[in-house]
Amino acid sequence: MTDDLLRYLESYLTDNRKKLFQKVLNERTKHFTVVLEDIYQPHNTSAVIRSCDIFGIQDVYTIENEFTNKISRHVARGSHKWVNIHRFKKDTDNTIPCLDHVQQQGYQLIATSPHIDSTYLPDFDISTKTAFIFGREKEGISDIIKERADGFLKIPMYGFTESLNISVAVAIILQYVTSKLKVSHLDWQLQPSEKREIYEHWVRKTIKNVDMIIDHYLERN
Amino acid sequence: MTDDLLRYLESYLTDNRKKLFQKVLNERTKHFTVVLEDIYQPHNTSAVIRSCDIFGIQDVYTIENEFTNKISRHVARGSHKWVNIHRFKKDTDNTIPCLDHVQQQGYQLIATSPHIDSTYLPDFDISTKTAFIFGREKEGISDIIKERADGFLKIPMYGFTESLNISVAVAIILQYVTSKLKVSHLDWQLQPSEKREIYEHWVRKTIKNVDMIIDHYLERN
Repeated sequence: MTDDLLRYLESYLTDNRKKLFQKVLNERTKHFTVVLEDIYQPHNTSAVIRSCDIFGIQDVYTIENEFTNKISRHVARGSHKWVNIHRFKKDTDNTIPCLDHVQQQGYQLIATSPHIDSTYLPDFDISTKTAFIFGREKEGISDIIKERADGFLKIPMYGFTESLNISVAVAIILQYVTSKLKVSHLDWQLQPSEKREIYEHWVRKTIKNVDMIIDHYLERN
Repeated sequence: MTDDLLRYLESYLTDNRKKLFQKVLNERTKHFTVVLEDIYQPHNTSAVIRSCDIFGIQDVYTIENEFTNKISRHVARGSHKWVNIHRFKKDTDNTIPCLDHVQQQGYQLIATSPHIDSTYLPDFDISTKTAFIFGREKEGISDIIKERADGFLKIPMYGFTESLNISVAVAIILQYVTSKLKVSHLDWQLQPSEKREIYEHWVRKTIKNVDMIIDHYLERN
């Protein structure tokens, strides 16, 4: 998109909207991402996407083997419009293609499991670019993920109940690691080119009949 | 309960069970507590109780004005058996009696609200005995709580979505403050007499027909 076209489209947005976009963009990161493997409850996927938006995670990857990633709009509260959701659903088993892709983006693969002897959240080193992988509600992460993971992470628990709901576990981890990230000296913010791309995407999402408006603009210019 | 009676009842428990009780008791605290004001979704109350068990909060207070505190067993996963749930439901408005009671226990009242200019979670000083108060799903905390609160707390949020589900908010706050508490030099553990009382309670909860067993024991001794 040319600068001129972007300026033109921005004229359809209120100043408050543009300020909000910049404010949110400044808090977005690709230092962390979330991978969901075959979650079957739409309200769980939706709650995760909402937490990603709230804590500034721009990219979410969904592996859809048996279950399709449906969004519960009531739970997501519109957050799915502002987060990049990368769906892996073409094949019978989409776990490997997704993990390959995420690794190619430079992420280490950290699988979360309460049942594996692994790093406790307060001891987790945030300095490496990390994809946090969450498995199915009951079964947890698949064997493929157990084999491929660079490490494992768990939330310390001290009671009789031994597991947290997945949406709660994701929220706890994201809040914890992003609050550490924001006071760190790491270069966690988006690059200018990444910001620009997402900003354009958000501007387009905000304007009704945006394709028609762009066509008219291009005809006239 | 006499020591002898407790020893007798313990003979109905496996060694693993007794060890688990001691392990969990050592992580329990009354330094923090949770107050829920008129939550109407049973799955939210139940998820909060589950988080309290997981993060070692022994006491939960429920203010039940319009809505009765029902437990969703599927969500609570048995955790309601191991946490002390103090229900305030006698009067038309139970908020003041509950707050009075909680203050008498020595807690400062910290109300959580995303909409009030308040302390951010990472800046919260954990050194004072604190009751974290959570209000209704949509409306949030009542005016009475706004007036009575010693302070306000919120979780920093950086996205378009401006609120977290209550069960997620509780879990994030409890995980954060208890993980700080456990590495602090504060005297956060239960007193021996408190441990004993809860232990007796748990032992009783575990044994079927316990009242009959105690009656038989008392007749013979």
